[in-house]
Amino acid sequence: MAAPHSPSSLSRYLDGEFWKIRDNLREGISNCELFHYDLSLDQIRDLTADRLHYAMKLPLMQRHLTDQVKESWVQKFSILCFFSPLFYLYINLQNLAFTGMFALTERGHGSNARGILTEAHYEPATQEFIIHTPCEDAQKMYIGNAMKGHYAAVFAQLIIKGEPHGPHCFIVPIRDQHGVMWPGVTAFDMRHKEGLHGVDNGILIFDHVRIPRENLLDKFGSVSADGKYSSRIRSKGTRFNAMIAALTPTRLALTVQAMAAMKLGLIIAVRYSHSRRQFGPKDQDEVKIIEHQTQYLRLMPHLATSLALTFTVRYAARLMDDALSQGQDLQSNRPLQALVAGLKAYSTWANVVCLQECRECTGGMGFMMENRIPSLKCDSDVFVTFEGDNMVMLQVVVRELMTQYTKQFEDSIVTGMIRNWSSSASDRIRTSFLGFSVDKVGDLSFLLKALSYRERVLQRSLAARLYAKVMNITLSLSTSFDCPSFLNIAKSLLVTLEQFALAVQECQVKDDQDLLSKFCLLHGTSLVYQERAWYLEHNYLSPGASRQIRNQLLELCRSVKDDALKVVADFNFPSCCIQAPIAGVVNPRAEWGFYPLSESPVSQSHAQQRAMSKL
Amino acid sequence: MAAPHSPSSLSRYLDGEFWKIRDNLREGISNCELFHYDLSLDQIRDLTADRLHYAMKLPLMQRHLTDQVKESWVQKFSILCFFSPLFYLYINLQNLAFTGMFALTERGHGSNARGILTEAHYEPATQEFIIHTPCEDAQKMYIGNAMKGHYAAVFAQLIIKGEPHGPHCFIVPIRDQHGVMWPGVTAFDMRHKEGLHGVDNGILIFDHVRIPRENLLDKFGSVSADGKYSSRIRSKGTRFNAMIAALTPTRLALTVQAMAAMKLGLIIAVRYSHSRRQFGPKDQDEVKIIEHQTQYLRLMPHLATSLALTFTVRYAARLMDDALSQGQDLQSNRPLQALVAGLKAYSTWANVVCLQECRECTGGMGFMMENRIPSLKCDSDVFVTFEGDNMVMLQVVVRELMTQYTKQFEDSIVTGMIRNWSSSASDRIRTSFLGFSVDKVGDLSFLLKALSYRERVLQRSLAARLYAKVMNITLSLSTSFDCPSFLNIAKSLLVTLEQFALAVQECQVKDDQDLLSKFCLLHGTSLVYQERAWYLEHNYLSPGASRQIRNQLLELCRSVKDDALKVVADFNFPSCCIQAPIAGVVNPRAEWGFYPLSESPVSQSHAQQRAMSKL
Repeated sequence: MAAPHSPSSLSRYLDGEFWKIRDNLREGISNCELFHYDLSLDQIRDLTADRLHYAMKLPLMQRHLTDQVKESWVQKFSILCFFSPLFYLYINLQNLAFTGMFALTERGHGSNARGILTEAHYEPATQEFIIHTPCEDAQKMYIGNAMKGHYAAVFAQLIIKGEPHGPHCFIVPIRDQHGVMWPGVTAFDMRHKEGLHGVDNGILIFDHVRIPRENLLDKFGSVSADGKYSSRIRSKGTRFNAMIAALTPTRLALTVQAMAAMKLGLIIAVRYSHSRRQFGPKDQDEVKIIEHQTQYLRLMPHLATSLALTFTVRYAARLMDDALSQGQDLQSNRPLQALVAGLKAYSTWANVVCLQECRECTGGMGFMMENRIPSLKCDSDVFVTFEGDNMVMLQVVVRELMTQYTKQFEDSIVTGMIRNWSSSASDRIRTSFLGFSVDKVGDLSFLLKALSYRERVLQRSLAARLYAKVMNITLSLSTSFDCPSFLNIAKSLLVTLEQFALAVQECQVKDDQDLLSKFCLLHGTSLVYQERAWYLEHNYLSPGASRQIRNQLLELCRSVKDDALKVVADFNFPSCCIQAPIAGVVNPRAEWGFYPLSESPVSQSHAQQRAMSKL
Repeated sequence: MAAPHSPSSLSRYLDGEFWKIRDNLREGISNCELFHYDLSLDQIRDLTADRLHYAMKLPLMQRHLTDQVKESWVQKFSILCFFSPLFYLYINLQNLAFTGMFALTERGHGSNARGILTEAHYEPATQEFIIHTPCEDAQKMYIGNAMKGHYAAVFAQLIIKGEPHGPHCFIVPIRDQHGVMWPGVTAFDMRHKEGLHGVDNGILIFDHVRIPRENLLDKFGSVSADGKYSSRIRSKGTRFNAMIAALTPTRLALTVQAMAAMKLGLIIAVRYSHSRRQFGPKDQDEVKIIEHQTQYLRLMPHLATSLALTFTVRYAARLMDDALSQGQDLQSNRPLQALVAGLKAYSTWANVVCLQECRECTGGMGFMMENRIPSLKCDSDVFVTFEGDNMVMLQVVVRELMTQYTKQFEDSIVTGMIRNWSSSASDRIRTSFLGFSVDKVGDLSFLLKALSYRERVLQRSLAARLYAKVMNITLSLSTSFDCPSFLNIAKSLLVTLEQFALAVQECQVKDDQDLLSKFCLLHGTSLVYQERAWYLEHNYLSPGASRQIRNQLLELCRSVKDDALKVVADFNFPSCCIQAPIAGVVNPRAEWGFYPLSESPVSQSHAQQRAMSKL
């Protein structure tokens, strides 16, 4: 592998303020050869551990781990995402002498985590908690690292003298450094999954496991030696939500992970589409498949989305850094929680659709393991249902807002919701400089307004429904088909377009700005196109304008199909992370699959091509 | 495994006229224990061969193989689909002493198969063809059974005395019964794929391989001993299309396969949704997840689609049987080719979306291999791009119509297309008896008219465009975004609704008819809902009617969610084929995942439940 080349201005802009750290990490992992796809379950798990050790031993990571200030880690280390789909797990590990696991989900309670059944009885005589699994449904399930890890953060119902105090988190030893199990703890391997084979998911069962009183994580509630419970948060529900707010950074990391999977899939599909030829005019050379309308129409909107997510994740990460550096608890920052929950759902679903299109657009080659798309698909498929099921999570956020409402004046829900979500960036965006098309629907300002309008209408509709049932809230998921989940998604869509537009505005290099501007307009057009039925139903778009949106989508996709090669080059992924022969990366185990990169429009890619040809 | 129980009336109706044969096959495979998911590539391939032998040795199959009349095999043997995703491959094998392979695709030519580069030079002196791979792009790729098979049907450009005659098909020996390779033949293993691990896909390379003159399959063109070429079809293109028409039965079998995968996924997801509980009213038991609107709204439309496909496949299979029994060549039956091509694209895409929803609706459990959905997804993913890439194939059908047109009067294209596609069943359907809702959009007749309208408009629009460019046709895929492919899909959608409606009409058991009627209306509503943007754009639906369609969709999904349990029971899949612990089938290797079946509304399911509890 050749040394990393000098990045282009766009590549640096996409990296953002921590580009030096990211370049340093790129260089570190560029020499790693720990990539395989044809191993047994045990071998894959060992390989994953090796890669984890490799990454953690990079000088930069070592410095970060000994550093007291951990801020901005999402922005700094997200580059490791394309090194492994488990980045978001790694990053929580901190050191490898002892490893941990997070034990919330039970057999009987996944999405409805508040209903977990594991018990933690306090015994004043010994000043110990007794952690116990009272029934099959209380078994801790899908626990990552369960077969190797040393400690578990176990969520259990705290019970003192028969009185329940709701779920709390306890540190429970699982096994010592020699692998000997802690008394009363049993761990089972759940073995084969669709993907993420590098992580062992297991079941933990506790048979009256004794742990010292100090092992209760007491940020939200503590127990005195003689068994007195105290907490600064009175409501059990609110207390649990505060604990669960700790998942917010993990959810953001998952968004980064989904975005990285999208980018990898797109790098592979776009490069292949620019080298593979099929069909063409009679008696002439066949054309590159990217020239076919069906091909660029399927790929280009996802490329625009991946760019939009780049800037949106950065925005969310900054908000989180700001909150943490100001000593704010994340649980009190509901707008940030809602933003991250919405982004998690939007990005992980976008990833599933994107990778499916990448698979189909690369035909039989995309079905071959050496071309990476299958494992990307299988690994990232679970993102949509874990760390908070997308469907449920979107509704939980809105439910939280409803719960908050019951404590306030009845008519404040509308203003409350608007206050929570009014940090919209729309006002700050000058859109005139972006408008290059001749008519209304082609203006970015129109697209921003359309998304914003939809969000407001859904908000009003939800508020009206809440009014109607507010004194007798039945918190059933069944009541909430379109509004809450669509509202949260609608908000996420708007944020991605806003942040993309701001990034275009702030871009200093004219050529890069022009390029990003086209993709930004494409992203907005694609978002409105997808929801055109809603806009037509609400008379926001006329039938003619809707058809115009479709034509605009076609034209924009066509206009960026050649730029796509530059964009995927500027994602700047080390080729050892791309791996796929159809993306121009030689794989000695699948030589037949190699497709050389086509001549690309920018010198950047030439350099990369040369570097790869030396492999 | 208990003996198969007596099927319900609905189950028998879904089986159709060959229900006895299907029941016999069910019984045969019910005792097969050849199911595993955690094997090496070689082990999976061996297991697949074992399953193949097992199925082929069933008395009924033996009788079929020795029988001279092979008709109706799709209808008779499609039951084996849930025994293996490779049914459609099995069925072509006929006997197992020698096995074959189909070698059309090359490295350089997949979708554009007409451009293959493998050469077959005729040598009059020896009366042999010399099969040769002149370059890397001419290597035969993805060839199933390449590592074990004995003979290959190889497509190559026939060349006589330097003159090319277009692609023809030759029988080429690959290896003898001891595995010794035929001189000049090389086979490579392509090894790891996303799924279909039971089939070895390989690369075949020919180095001046000599075969006797008789090995040319001469139905469409023959060569005399002294090297004179003759064919009853003059045009090379037409001749190639005639050869490719042989793929029509395989494409129909693939539709059956996709439908079986959908049904399996739905059996698993529906049963789990009826036993798994999560969330619920305060201080009460949690509710079954099927009660959540988000859950039934995601699953029920697919269940309706799988029923519609059941009847549509039967219709297409009968058309094919009729054609074959009347001695018709399939290549001259363009409407049947178009129907099957459209069904293949529609059903395989529907399957991908359906299985993804099943995966998400079963949460983490759906990600576990023992619950079958992951392997169903990975196996059937390739269906959308092989045996004719969905996107390309839809366009090829229309292109064929365009080519035909150039030979006819200029103004005949419209009438020609309408003639080809005018065998619509709409006229024959009495819809009044189905209409149970109070307003227009709730009538099945309205839904049928809507789908039919869309097809006609797309047809007209395509015809108009053809007029404009007819004397100078550039057959580029780029010219054809929405119209041809959407037209073909639109036609397929209409056919599925028509055939479903006819099946409802012909159903003799009142209760079954009522049940099917609800699902039929749901299918139509769902189809129009998905395309409501188009209808709004064309002023066919008013904004109010469009919103009504959505409400109707919600209401219909809610109304059938409990019936779903009966429907999936009446699919009548042996539990050894279902396998999934979350569907109530015990798996000793994943005991933790077992969810007992819930009390079901029909005795049928009780019987099945009891049968399963004895496992």
